[in-house]
Amino acid sequence: MRKTIVEMLKRAGDNFVSGESIAGELKISRTAVWKHIQKLRDNGYEILSRERCGYKLKDAPDLLLPSEIQIGLDTQIVGAEMHYQPSVDSTNHVAKALAYHGASDGTIVVAEEQTGGKGRRERSFYSPRGKGIWFSVVLRPKILPKDAPKLTLMVAVAVAEALNRFNLKLGIKWPNDLLFDGRKIVGILTEMTGEIGRIAYVVVGVGINVNIARDEFPEELQAVAASLSEMSGEELSRVKILRAVLEEIDKLYREVNENGFGEILKLWRKHNITLGKKVRVIAAVEGGENFDGTAVDLNGDGALVVETADGLRTVYAGDVSIR
Amino acid sequence: MRKTIVEMLKRAGDNFVSGESIAGELKISRTAVWKHIQKLRDNGYEILSRERCGYKLKDAPDLLLPSEIQIGLDTQIVGAEMHYQPSVDSTNHVAKALAYHGASDGTIVVAEEQTGGKGRRERSFYSPRGKGIWFSVVLRPKILPKDAPKLTLMVAVAVAEALNRFNLKLGIKWPNDLLFDGRKIVGILTEMTGEIGRIAYVVVGVGINVNIARDEFPEELQAVAASLSEMSGEELSRVKILRAVLEEIDKLYREVNENGFGEILKLWRKHNITLGKKVRVIAAVEGGENFDGTAVDLNGDGALVVETADGLRTVYAGDVSIR
Repeated sequence: MRKTIVEMLKRAGDNFVSGESIAGELKISRTAVWKHIQKLRDNGYEILSRERCGYKLKDAPDLLLPSEIQIGLDTQIVGAEMHYQPSVDSTNHVAKALAYHGASDGTIVVAEEQTGGKGRRERSFYSPRGKGIWFSVVLRPKILPKDAPKLTLMVAVAVAEALNRFNLKLGIKWPNDLLFDGRKIVGILTEMTGEIGRIAYVVVGVGINVNIARDEFPEELQAVAASLSEMSGEELSRVKILRAVLEEIDKLYREVNENGFGEILKLWRKHNITLGKKVRVIAAVEGGENFDGTAVDLNGDGALVVETADGLRTVYAGDVSIR
Repeated sequence: MRKTIVEMLKRAGDNFVSGESIAGELKISRTAVWKHIQKLRDNGYEILSRERCGYKLKDAPDLLLPSEIQIGLDTQIVGAEMHYQPSVDSTNHVAKALAYHGASDGTIVVAEEQTGGKGRRERSFYSPRGKGIWFSVVLRPKILPKDAPKLTLMVAVAVAEALNRFNLKLGIKWPNDLLFDGRKIVGILTEMTGEIGRIAYVVVGVGINVNIARDEFPEELQAVAASLSEMSGEELSRVKILRAVLEEIDKLYREVNENGFGEILKLWRKHNITLGKKVRVIAAVEGGENFDGTAVDLNGDGALVVETADGLRTVYAGDVSIR
């Protein structure tokens, strides 16, 4: 309902929209309209009201509110249900709890900041308020658990494709980090729950550094992290980027459910910056062994094939650093 | 402490054990001894007390109490922490909650009955009070998620080996049902949680029909379920069987952590009744296709290789019925 009010106000541009016409459109009382307007103001919308004229939108908040994201959002599954919180410990944590209690396929959790954001292998993920896009999506894909690693490639590709719409070209480091100038702008953490042979749900968390100046990063991250605003030289609209990302995830997810991962692997190759490079592979399992080699291929399971002095090795999990 | 008291009483057999000697052994007061005796009586132990003689165990309860299971239990990891509840909805559910909150590797949840016991694919699992062994174990294995399906084979093998100790020979139907006369005696449900490339924890639930007469099963199960007492012609000790099962899981789990799954796959072949048989494979994924063929091999991933009219097919998940 509030999404419709915001849409009406935006459509009107500099003009006032009468409380009567809003009430008519939504089939609610004018008092109810006034209450929604108050709620929007609480959420950061600056709305002028003038007697006998109505309401006019002066400024929309720079927040990732569902009422903002949903305007013009072209998706079928992803974002049909949206949860927004100003601050959470981790969006994956919230999304997993929702999924456990039955949240539908495509449910989104968005936050302005994460106080305990997590990357892979329980590393912390820097997620300052209002400076990036921190969200998670609940997926209930019709695939086998053995194919789940390719979902993480799918989301990396979706983010790369979405950013291409803004002329931002990032490279994917296997499996799913998006880099600029060797520094990370996007991190993805995919978590799965299910029985052997059957996925219950997958939660994919995405963190995109949008408007963070290099010297705003904590010192220990300055050499390894970057943001989109650094690439483009200007501040970017988080809402527009998130909308594009959700649309690309939605499109590729439907592709996977219908035709499998063929197209995803093709797009991954297009966006990747790992194949052909010398890499060091850091073992995923405690006590495992690290090794060096050249990344030569991505196989059908989404695993990285590395040529070493001892022959080809297939890497299913672990960290890869490009030498 | 109560475990030690039970052990002392059992060791004494038909003789009385003085409160003094128990107090001395445990370094507690005689009043404290008396309180523990009361607690044991609450748990179903029949303990005689006679002035100037002490205590004598008349009868131990037929319950799967940790104080009973732990006596003589020879394990290193499995069962180091035990949770017992007379009734739960599902032991896997309780174990997953404990694992989420950090329960250690090998933690066990045992119940006398499950009110909402679950098998694979959310089928209900009949778990009547006191008639079977319904338990779950939390594992934190040092393996990759892609190898997790072999843990379910490991537990099936462990149960088969444990039952062999009692001269009960069951056959494993791929992947993990244990059958007698074509009917199921043991069901296993393995659930995994983790990131792509990294297991957080695996919970394996095991249900063993022990002392259930054929006509005690609900009518719809009588043609497909059986129990150990039907095989052996007599009632069996659930405590002794559970102890053996925990010991075999412990042994094989340590083998896996040290040397991988080679030995498990060998033992699975030894106990299996699937290879060489005509089978029907029922698709694991919605919209998947069923097919018939002959089970010809178990591959290194624990998947079933089936020869069909169209060539070999590899089955990673799904139901297999033997024709």
